[in-house]
Parts: sequence; C-alpha cells; structure tokens
Amino acid sequence: MKNEQLPLLRRLVAACATTLLLASSVIAQADPLPSWNDGAAKARIVGFVQAVTTEGSKDYVPPADRIAVFDNDGTLWAEQPAYFQLLFAIDRVRALAPKHPEWKTKQPFKAVLDGDMKTLAAAGEKGVLELVMATHAGMTTDEFAAVVRDWLATARHPKLGRPYTDLVYRPMLEVLAYLRANGFKTYIVSGGGIEFVRVFSEARYGIPPEQVVGSSVKTKYEVRDGKPVIVRLPEIDFIDDKAGKPVGIHKFIGKRPIAAFGNSDGDFEMLEYTNAGRGARLAMIVHHDDADREYAYDRKSGVGRLDRGLDEAGKRGWTVISMKDDWRQVFAPAK
Amino acid sequence: MKNEQLPLLRRLVAACATTLLLASSVIAQADPLPSWNDGAAKARIVGFVQAVTTEGSKDYVPPADRIAVFDNDGTLWAEQPAYFQLLFAIDRVRALAPKHPEWKTKQPFKAVLDGDMKTLAAAGEKGVLELVMATHAGMTTDEFAAVVRDWLATARHPKLGRPYTDLVYRPMLEVLAYLRANGFKTYIVSGGGIEFVRVFSEARYGIPPEQVVGSSVKTKYEVRDGKPVIVRLPEIDFIDDKAGKPVGIHKFIGKRPIAAFGNSDGDFEMLEYTNAGRGARLAMIVHHDDADREYAYDRKSGVGRLDRGLDEAGKRGWTVISMKDDWRQVFAPAK
Repeated sequence: MKNEQLPLLRRLVAACATTLLLASSVIAQADPLPSWNDGAAKARIVGFVQAVTTEGSKDYVPPADRIAVFDNDGTLWAEQPAYFQLLFAIDRVRALAPKHPEWKTKQPFKAVLDGDMKTLAAAGEKGVLELVMATHAGMTTDEFAAVVRDWLATARHPKLGRPYTDLVYRPMLEVLAYLRANGFKTYIVSGGGIEFVRVFSEARYGIPPEQVVGSSVKTKYEVRDGKPVIVRLPEIDFIDDKAGKPVGIHKFIGKRPIAAFGNSDGDFEMLEYTNAGRGARLAMIVHHDDADREYAYDRKSGVGRLDRGLDEAGKRGWTVISMKDDWRQVFAPAK
Repeated sequence: MKNEQLPLLRRLVAACATTLLLASSVIAQADPLPSWNDGAAKARIVGFVQAVTTEGSKDYVPPADRIAVFDNDGTLWAEQPAYFQLLFAIDRVRALAPKHPEWKTKQPFKAVLDGDMKTLAAAGEKGVLELVMATHAGMTTDEFAAVVRDWLATARHPKLGRPYTDLVYRPMLEVLAYLRANGFKTYIVSGGGIEFVRVFSEARYGIPPEQVVGSSVKTKYEVRDGKPVIVRLPEIDFIDDKAGKPVGIHKFIGKRPIAAFGNSDGDFEMLEYTNAGRGARLAMIVHHDDADREYAYDRKSGVGRLDRGLDEAGKRGWTVISMKDDWRQVFAPAK
C-alpha cells in the first residue's frame, strides 16, 4: 500500500471508532450491575462512573487516570472461617510435616498441627505470609505457583464444600467488568501474598498479574541447572496491609486511584488515600451482614475486622455496601 | 434501548472491529521503523514481531503475554558524560548545600561540591540513588516529582546544550510505538530511581507510571496537615540493577517478558532471563559506537560498561545494535 492512501484509511478508522463509541454507550444502557438491588450503593457506583466518563463534565477523568483498586479477601472473595491463604498454608504445613519433626514443638507450626485456629487467626495476614514463607523458601516462583494451582484445583471450603475460586462475589465481578468497560484499569491491592493471588486473578477476576499488588517475600535471581529462575527467600519483603496499602499503590501504580473497594479496617488507609484526591472519588466498604447466604461479622471479628470504618464511613463520604440488602446474589457461578 | 436490540448492535460492533483490524494491518505495512537503516538489527525486530503476532504461527504469543522491557539510561536516552539522574543529584546537592555546612567534609557530598566526577561515577546507579535519597528524605512524593519536573524543564546537557528529555533515541521511540501497535505492553526496567523516571516516561516514551520498574527508596504513608501523602524515607528499598532486574520484573509484572532491550552489563541478567523463556524471544543490546553523533564507549567505560554482553551476545542469540550503522538518526525531535 502506498503511503498516500494512509490518510483515507485513517479517516475510515476514525469513523469506525466513532461508531464503536456510540454503540458501546448504547450497550452501556443495559443494566451493568444485574446482581445489585436498586439502592444507594448501586446508584452511587453508576453515578460515579457516569460523572467521571462524561466528557465536558466537571468530574471528567481521562482514561489514563481511571485507576480502581480492590482489596481481595472479603471484598472480591470470601475470607471466613479464615483467610483462604491461611487454609492453604495449613494444608502445606501438614503435607510437609513428616520432613520437619521440629515443627511439633515450634510455633506457629505447632498451632497448625494442633488445629489451634485461634492462635493462627490472631497472627493476621502477616502470620499467614510467615507460614507460607517458611514452608516454601528455596522454591522457584514457578514451582510455588504450581503448588498453589494444584491446591486451588482440589481443596474445598470447610463449610460451603466448594472450590475456593467459586467463592468470588458475583456483584463485585460485575463492578470490575463495568469499570473496565468504562476505561478503568482495575487493580487488586491485597494484604495476601502477591504470588498466591496472581495464580487465579486473571482467570477469575480478569485482572492480569501485573495489576496485582500484595504482600511479598524477597526473591533472588539464579541460574539453576542452566535455567534462569526466581527463587523465594525466607524473608518478608513487604506487608501490603493497613498503611502499607497506599505505599504499595504508590510503588506499583505511581498514581492515586479514584475508586477503592475494601471490607475491613485493613483497607482504611487505602480508602482514605483514594478519597483524598481532587475531583470525584468513590470509596466503598463491603459489609458482611448476611449470615444466611455468607457470614455476618464486623467489629469483633478476628478475620476482617471492620470497626473504625463503620464509625467513620458516613462522615467521610464513603458508602457501606450491605451484602444482605444490596446484593441480589452473592456468589458467582462456578467456573 | 431494548435488550432485544443488543445482538444486532453487537454484530455491528464486531463488523466494525474486523474493519479496524484489517485497516491496522494495512497501516502496519508502512515502514514502522523509518529511523533504522536496513540491516540485521532492523530485520530481527520486524521478523520477531511478525512471528509472535501471526495467528497460527508456531511462535504466536497471545497479546496478554506480549511483554517488552527496556532499560532506560543508554537504551532509551543518553547516559554520558554521567547518568542524568546523577547530574540532577549534583544540582540538588549544590542547591541545598547552604543549609548543610557538614557536607563540605562528608562524602559523597564533598565529591559533589568539589566536582570530583571520578569518585561519583564509580558509585554507579546505587550511588546516585543514595545522593538523591539523602537530599530528598522527608519530602512527599508529590513534592519530589515537582522538583524533578522543574529540573528537567530548565537543566541543559553539558555537551549537547539541550534539555535532557530531548536526548531520547528516535529509533527506540519507533520500536516502542511499533511494539505497542502490535499489542505489546512496554515497560521500563531501570537501575535509575523509579520516581525520577516516572516524571517523564509517559510524555516522552508513552509509558505510563504503572509500567515503570526502577530502584526505589522506602516510603511511608502519613496524614500531613489533614492530607494523606506518601513520604520519602532515607532508606534504600530496592536496587533494580543487574540480578535485581529480573527480580524487579517478577515483582512488578509477574510474567517473563518475551523481548528485552539493554545497553550495558547491568542489563545482562534481564536479557538472560527474558531470552531463556520458551518460544520466540528478542534480546537486543544498543552498542554506543558513534562518537560523531553521540558517544563511543563500551568495555572500559565508567558509565554503562558493556563487556560481558559483547563477548556473549553472539553465542546466546542476542543481537547487538550498532548506533553508528543501524540508526539513520539518533535523537528524537524536541518535544
């Protein structure tokens, strides 16, 4: 093709792009959040998205700055009766115990082998990471991902009897898809281990590994048997929880998000940081108040405690999502 | 619009998308790399891109895995007579010296104030980071970005007399654009400071902040005068150089790239890691052999030393780009 023909072609492309834009705006009028009951929470999400995507609106935000961050445990998937990564770590400690007789008397391994969940829950996401770290040091990152993948494929939730990756929230999957359809880049910002979450984030949430921020262990580069690999070290690198979440966001993304979703006080600073930027902001908290369909817990829970967030959401302009009232369905169909 | 009309609209969208795809493939036939002379290096880039983007080809790579990584100093912009971030640090030390009489006798500040470039150059990118760290601790990340922005707007290269952001390589900008037009995600993986590079990466390279990996200082989250900010601490967090580059890639991206561009032995492990993956791979080294238009240096240079890379490129299947022979033009037009 000659270069002179390019302008014509470019006009054709532009015309087509306009058609696509119009078509997509019409499609967008179908309900983007069918698993949400009509109410303040749903209206807040839709109103925010319309405000920041309407060109000429005072709240308009260009696509490059449409960054939305999501906590994972308790926000995108369930976290009771314990963080799923802790359940993974427990299974791993049990599987590896025959090779480690010293664990019978050494904490936190002893607590795992004794089934002492109270001691384990008190250690929080950092405790989980320490267990995973200790049991998987020296493994390459590819080997670790394979172990996680195998576990996710075979393990079942103790109460609900389903694979853990079934226990993702359908209304939140709709929010992720809705935001992306409106030019947002969606990120996970999890207190859980980054290498654990990355194994299923793309398949389950449509979030690629490079958009997962999380807690991590140190690693090193090594040429092992002639093959360059990344090896996990028994040392914590970063805890992406509480005040660590804005730090993780700044490190990985380098921009302040305009929308944030969390469910516990571990997300407080992330919501605060997001909400403090200029212009329209969306800060939302998933409140687990649905004992029938999922779990009901907040101020006194050992896992996913939500206390200060409930006290301050109103005055800070954050929206509390009631799982019981706002969600027509809780879990997504199996995949 | 009624939901029954959606299938029709979706067909329209699909037809339009096909048109766009055809149009873009025709546009792609115009020379995507006009600043490159015809030769092995250019043919290698074009051949690789065609191989990994041709559906049905044995080397086909889906868009999600088309990750390309680029060193910055000496690969995307110049790095002589010293890393530009070192020249920034020197200017900052001089500007702040009146408030720090102790620097007159304390290294490395003394070397800066004495103009002792040899001592400074020997400290490498880590030394640069230490200087920047010491001079900007306690500042918020927004304040630091503003200082960098001001410096880039006013400082001039000592030999070429132009703003530093003019000294980006036109042929490399073409490679970045060509890869992105073919579905690649392009990343910077720099030994330089992540917060320094992010200030200009989007405007100059079309690479957004979230696709910049680099060396970093620790930061902390703080509510300062009622405003949530990220504060720089006087402690190094991560050195993204040499064996640190694959570690940084794994941490930020979580996938092995399929293409890597570097220019010094600081990029050796990044090229090695990239090239060792399965399927078609592209590993390229920019060789500074053009004293007339830029600089000529390699095995014995204090900045950007290239020694092992020159020895091993051939047997490893990496391609050495000769700035002198392969590049029709060196610098991009001013912006």
